[in-house]
Amino acid sequence: MTGRGPRGERGEQADRIIAAARRSFATRGYAATSLRSVAQEAGVDPGLVHYYFRGKTGLLEAVMEPPEAFGAAVATAAEQPLPERGRAFVQAALQMWEDTASAEVLRSIILTAAQEPAALQRLRQLFTELVLAVVSHDLPDSERTLRASLIATQIDGMVMNRYIWRVGDIAALPADAVTDLLAPTIQHYLADPLP
Amino acid sequence: MTGRGPRGERGEQADRIIAAARRSFATRGYAATSLRSVAQEAGVDPGLVHYYFRGKTGLLEAVMEPPEAFGAAVATAAEQPLPERGRAFVQAALQMWEDTASAEVLRSIILTAAQEPAALQRLRQLFTELVLAVVSHDLPDSERTLRASLIATQIDGMVMNRYIWRVGDIAALPADAVTDLLAPTIQHYLADPLP
Repeated sequence: MTGRGPRGERGEQADRIIAAARRSFATRGYAATSLRSVAQEAGVDPGLVHYYFRGKTGLLEAVMEPPEAFGAAVATAAEQPLPERGRAFVQAALQMWEDTASAEVLRSIILTAAQEPAALQRLRQLFTELVLAVVSHDLPDSERTLRASLIATQIDGMVMNRYIWRVGDIAALPADAVTDLLAPTIQHYLADPLP
Repeated sequence: MTGRGPRGERGEQADRIIAAARRSFATRGYAATSLRSVAQEAGVDPGLVHYYFRGKTGLLEAVMEPPEAFGAAVATAAEQPLPERGRAFVQAALQMWEDTASAEVLRSIILTAAQEPAALQRLRQLFTELVLAVVSHDLPDSERTLRASLIATQIDGMVMNRYIWRVGDIAALPADAVTDLLAPTIQHYLADPLP
């Protein structure tokens, strides 16, 4: 989903356009971003943005695509035995956010989704695909979606405080300490009886 | 902090200006908002915005001021005996967010802080003043700030999923059910031994 072009020169141009759009959506907002300004910042002709992404909606779709490594990290966590899965999921989330390149993509997805309904819709799909995968398949659907939602609240709150707002002790601790502190909560939401 | 004017007509005008600024900061973003457009949306002369708030920074300060009831609700929760304080704090947070008027203010604070450094600085102060108040005063400072930070991650993540993004089961449950599900986590961060 990085535009129509194949890898190579076209792929590079599409990637530059996506990176410029990400920065602009996250800082100026989706509504205030023009395709012309994205093209200028990416150093390409405005016609190329239309050619690769058809318009602003197509560009938004490309921007909201999570890093491939993110899906892979979550899938690995989901394969762990249930008693270790909570910890594995915290580690997978931290690993993605500690990496500068993937953190920038995720950060842009979060900031854009808070302001733009179409981006929010995509965030909802990601939630269903990714977080739900970590929750045991043996459970009835109603319980799986509740547990996944609870896990999302704890992970997202950590992300907001540590990586977006950079506020409080959670922003300053080493990743291993964060894992030790949050893993019991995620494991509780994943496997303990709930009220 | 709602401008220089006293209550009465002046207070009302200042409040209308703040409400218009809140909507614009939260939807269009701080950078893309002009004092002129805020004045127009509030139905006042642009000179009045300068008169009450001196400029965009003063307006931002006023917008970032939390609802008075928020501080009061947190203070009441902080007075509960330690074993009931976690639950009381979840209830206080939910109560503020279930109220349409205060939720709009808090939503604007969160969305503005994600994009504007000055707003983020104010969010950090709020965090210190409010969340830290709930944590036991008997604890050493280092432990209090860690516990407060962990509580903030769980509350903020609930808020993002339930009230900002409206995603997952947590967005659809009654407030009482959310309290039952999150209170044990907050109590754990508040009072249990931590790794």
